[in-house]
Amino acid sequence: MAAPPWDELVSGVVERRPRAVARLITMVESREPGWQEAMRALYPRTGDARVVGITGPPGAGKSTLTNQVSRTLVAQGRRVGIIAVDPSSPFSGGALLGDRIRMRDILTAPGVFIRSMATRGSLGGLSQAARDVARILDAAGYDDVLIETVGVGQDEVDVVRAADLVIVVCVPGQGDAVQILKAGIMEIADIFVVNKADHPGAHELTMEIASMLELARLDACDDTPASCHVPALDADLNGDEAVWRVDVVETCAVSGEGIPRLVDAITEQFAEPAAAKASAHARAREEILALVDAELAGVARRRLAASLPEAAAHVAKMETDPYSAAEQLLAELGIQ
Amino acid sequence: MAAPPWDELVSGVVERRPRAVARLITMVESREPGWQEAMRALYPRTGDARVVGITGPPGAGKSTLTNQVSRTLVAQGRRVGIIAVDPSSPFSGGALLGDRIRMRDILTAPGVFIRSMATRGSLGGLSQAARDVARILDAAGYDDVLIETVGVGQDEVDVVRAADLVIVVCVPGQGDAVQILKAGIMEIADIFVVNKADHPGAHELTMEIASMLELARLDACDDTPASCHVPALDADLNGDEAVWRVDVVETCAVSGEGIPRLVDAITEQFAEPAAAKASAHARAREEILALVDAELAGVARRRLAASLPEAAAHVAKMETDPYSAAEQLLAELGIQ
Repeated sequence: MAAPPWDELVSGVVERRPRAVARLITMVESREPGWQEAMRALYPRTGDARVVGITGPPGAGKSTLTNQVSRTLVAQGRRVGIIAVDPSSPFSGGALLGDRIRMRDILTAPGVFIRSMATRGSLGGLSQAARDVARILDAAGYDDVLIETVGVGQDEVDVVRAADLVIVVCVPGQGDAVQILKAGIMEIADIFVVNKADHPGAHELTMEIASMLELARLDACDDTPASCHVPALDADLNGDEAVWRVDVVETCAVSGEGIPRLVDAITEQFAEPAAAKASAHARAREEILALVDAELAGVARRRLAASLPEAAAHVAKMETDPYSAAEQLLAELGIQ
Repeated sequence: MAAPPWDELVSGVVERRPRAVARLITMVESREPGWQEAMRALYPRTGDARVVGITGPPGAGKSTLTNQVSRTLVAQGRRVGIIAVDPSSPFSGGALLGDRIRMRDILTAPGVFIRSMATRGSLGGLSQAARDVARILDAAGYDDVLIETVGVGQDEVDVVRAADLVIVVCVPGQGDAVQILKAGIMEIADIFVVNKADHPGAHELTMEIASMLELARLDACDDTPASCHVPALDADLNGDEAVWRVDVVETCAVSGEGIPRLVDAITEQFAEPAAAKASAHARAREEILALVDAELAGVARRRLAASLPEAAAHVAKMETDPYSAAEQLLAELGIQ
């Protein structure tokens, strides 16, 4: 069956037909020719959805939390799109069954759209792909888009930075709070959730996070610019009017305890004079560069399709080094 | 103080002077002009070191394990280089104190070189940076290079794929084995370490991993190509001679229990007819493309320095969409 033309899919999305949404996402995700035109056509319809990133270590209960938050939002009469980002294997590529099974109870809920995204093959970067999918859901009238990632690597940090608001889920007993710092997510969190709050050590973890936030705030007050690693935190010290608000919320996702408070925190943060707007320029810059890089990488792969295998063979046989091989291919592309 | 010329640093590395090693790493890592020439000059001196990647979730005890493995290798008369890859904050960028403190007991050991690498600012990708640093240590006569990462995101997977052999460290009580699968590291592991083996649930975790490996092996036997997600595992089924060997080793890094067995497993895997060689072509291809992409991204940033801010401003004000902005800049670069 031939794919329907782009404009048909775009209309389908605007008319909120889930089937069209699913198909357009697939085609945009795989960068089929014409995807940019579709995104351009949808762009004026975007900007209304609240895009929320949810990240945290494996086993923190992110899927369950995402389900509970969605349920609460749906009960408020909102339509919710969920993007489950799976750092799937570079070999197998696919999204895993586990999430889908756990997602199933909400899959059938009206007004909920769930989509899995795999890491692999996203030449344009997973972050850009998440951004595109969030925009399609936005244009399809979903009021909230939840981007849920697995893990807390740099990749996940990039993905959730595509969101307007970031929730970092922690659980007691997964190493101390220093691990959170190590993961480099301290600075991107707008809300910390201490999940499994009924487990031992939960309250201590909440306290630890609170004091880390306090330390970061003090750091930001320091005169030395190098130590201002949370630039937007308490930003009024820098002459800015916005104050970076960070909430810490204890939840028990399985029982649903704490979820209403979390949803309130989300709503309140979005209601505040948007600190997000302040970074609109930086985010636009980042996105444009990501799109440019992806296109350049694609062009390079197409134009070097003939010469790359030979170059790789030379390097594999140690007849040349990879640096010289790359330089030669760049010369072939006419770049210096 | 002016930096010494490249050829002086290169000689210093070959003469095994730690100071020269440290400086060259810094300069190569920050891609100072001429870095490629230095790497080219060193390249013929590389290929002898065993490059081992060590990854696993935060709190799994990777630093302690790395220290213990190093100690054992040093006791065998080998020189060891350690690269601690920190997925540090996109804001602060720096490597964190924690690791350094924990590393300190081995820092003073003779024949050991320790280097922290931050994620940020690595235009060429962290994986390529790790590859370059490993090569410098290789050229400086380190017999073993251990690349230790934090977290198990796609980023970490990429980093350890720069290694010849990959160790995945797990601990009991961090969610079930399905989480390991989810992290997409099942297929890259040559050795699974179940650390904190004295904790409850350790043996169960070992059993779980063993049965996952068995399942993967069965999958690889399946006729359907799509299900062969561990292509190299038991590769003789595909007519290849190499058999992918995966070890599962229980350790208690704090007490040192199990470490000799782990070091033996490393030695044995390297002694086997290199399965790694089979992927030399794929790895060369990947590295060349990474170098090409990085150079293209750098060229784009330089050439677009003047027009990018304006484009970002237009997008931030919603006067245009990022897709059109990117296309316009690509046209400016003369790319289509």
